[in-house]
Amino acid sequence: MSETATEIDDLISRAKSGDRRALARLITYVEIAGPAARIVTSALHPLSGNASLVGVTGAPGAGKSTLVDKLVGAIRDDDIRVGVLAIDPSSPFTGGAILGDRVRMQDTAMDEDVFIRSMATRGHLGGLSLATPHAARVLDALGYPLILIETVGVGQAEVEIAGQADTTVVVLNPGWGDGIQAAKAGLMEIADIFVVNKADRPGVHETVGDIRGMLELARGRAWVPPVVETIATDGSGVGELWQAIRDHRDHLLATGSLRTRRMIRTAEEIRALVIEELGRDVRRRCSGTEFDAQVAEVVDRSRNPYHVASALIDAG
Amino acid sequence: MSETATEIDDLISRAKSGDRRALARLITYVEIAGPAARIVTSALHPLSGNASLVGVTGAPGAGKSTLVDKLVGAIRDDDIRVGVLAIDPSSPFTGGAILGDRVRMQDTAMDEDVFIRSMATRGHLGGLSLATPHAARVLDALGYPLILIETVGVGQAEVEIAGQADTTVVVLNPGWGDGIQAAKAGLMEIADIFVVNKADRPGVHETVGDIRGMLELARGRAWVPPVVETIATDGSGVGELWQAIRDHRDHLLATGSLRTRRMIRTAEEIRALVIEELGRDVRRRCSGTEFDAQVAEVVDRSRNPYHVASALIDAG
Repeated sequence: MSETATEIDDLISRAKSGDRRALARLITYVEIAGPAARIVTSALHPLSGNASLVGVTGAPGAGKSTLVDKLVGAIRDDDIRVGVLAIDPSSPFTGGAILGDRVRMQDTAMDEDVFIRSMATRGHLGGLSLATPHAARVLDALGYPLILIETVGVGQAEVEIAGQADTTVVVLNPGWGDGIQAAKAGLMEIADIFVVNKADRPGVHETVGDIRGMLELARGRAWVPPVVETIATDGSGVGELWQAIRDHRDHLLATGSLRTRRMIRTAEEIRALVIEELGRDVRRRCSGTEFDAQVAEVVDRSRNPYHVASALIDAG
Repeated sequence: MSETATEIDDLISRAKSGDRRALARLITYVEIAGPAARIVTSALHPLSGNASLVGVTGAPGAGKSTLVDKLVGAIRDDDIRVGVLAIDPSSPFTGGAILGDRVRMQDTAMDEDVFIRSMATRGHLGGLSLATPHAARVLDALGYPLILIETVGVGQAEVEIAGQADTTVVVLNPGWGDGIQAAKAGLMEIADIFVVNKADRPGVHETVGDIRGMLELARGRAWVPPVVETIATDGSGVGELWQAIRDHRDHLLATGSLRTRRMIRTAEEIRALVIEELGRDVRRRCSGTEFDAQVAEVVDRSRNPYHVASALIDAG
């Protein structure tokens, strides 16, 4: 057994007996990918597969983190251990996280049965799609039956999170509905539960009505997303949200959809791993002085890019 | 010569003698990728390399398309033929374009020396990064010395367009500057020219001041991005913008930066072609009943995802 494998073995034992720093370390290993991630996943994959993954997405400022904080409280009232993966959409330029110094999880920060982790996506291709399921698997295997994945819904991230969760909660605010039609269609496709947060603000009835109007199109589907009104700041409606999440879980189990979603997700994960591996190969092929010389030939119009690409593939 | 090659040869001859439908057809070929794209590119790559590529990006509603329309007018006043590639950010769900029925290019629609093409990115990985330079190359080879690439700047698209243009114009509006710091840092890295459009609105001086403040950090750089105030609807400032674009072009030529940018861009294009080719390979490997059975084994925890991914790569 290699040194890394021994260390990981030790970390897993410690994490199993409640060592949070060991757990954090394991997540770091899967987050940075590479050989250690492979060892962690190989060890923990057989122990995983029991947790519910709940994605919470919505625009910046929708009140997601306060809502997640209160939701964690409701879940803890039922004595269920909960993991939170908060995806920080980082600037693709600086690698810095936007969320930065915000104070999160005031209510639950001291609870030993709540594990909170911020993850930076760093604008990497496959960053969110690879690191998040890996981290969720670590929590799943090590005794967290409920995992909340919170992400700022900006375009593609929304779609990704929907692909990674069993249940996707979309958080909107009163006044929403003036948005573009295409975005609405997108939300309809990913949302299992709609939340209208800040329901003490004007326009809540119009927004709920707007969502219900859209949902008319979903009539006849096996699951019609409920619309839950919440005021995260005072906890109103959070119990209903937690109930809706459990109802959706029951629905997934009853219909066999849970397995279908996991099959799709796992297929995506395997594809991502294959792409990651081949991508490493591309970086290896497409670098160095010989590659630079080939690039110059294309710039100077003595060869065409397809020709060079084919040669690089054949040379692989 | 294959039938396709003969047809493409014919299309190129017709496009050279001004047949716009033949030109459009050639762009369709490179847009959809595949063997025909390869033939078109092989034929046209040697003829290309002369055009200036100018990216115009900014948030939805910043007035980019009106500005581009007026800019086309200014370029045409100098009797330069101009191509416009308008990137439609499509819903990843529906494949439909957001821009839809907007009426574009009122002023220049009848000009034989202006070629306008909307391109849908369809949320594809590599959609924008592969199709746009290909389309630009077709226009470049067939006699359009100036190509404007207009895109809605939403996150990653901004970065991509900056990577694909010789000159990147970032369009902002008065009132901008309340945005998040990370986004500002990002704009600083991609913008060669800042435009504050709708300069007849309140807050223009604050916004220009805000940008100039940021640009203090760029002091000492060989090129400090100018800040141009425009009112696209009446054409104010568009002449200054056109002058700034030419100044930047002169700067790129004088410093050798143009060749550097093209080297970087070409390297990226070759990498994208290699990835595209290998991606086809991944799709082939990761599909079918045998793959589904492997996915089920992972879902059922009898194998782990890395194991299956490695087996798929080795089997390739």
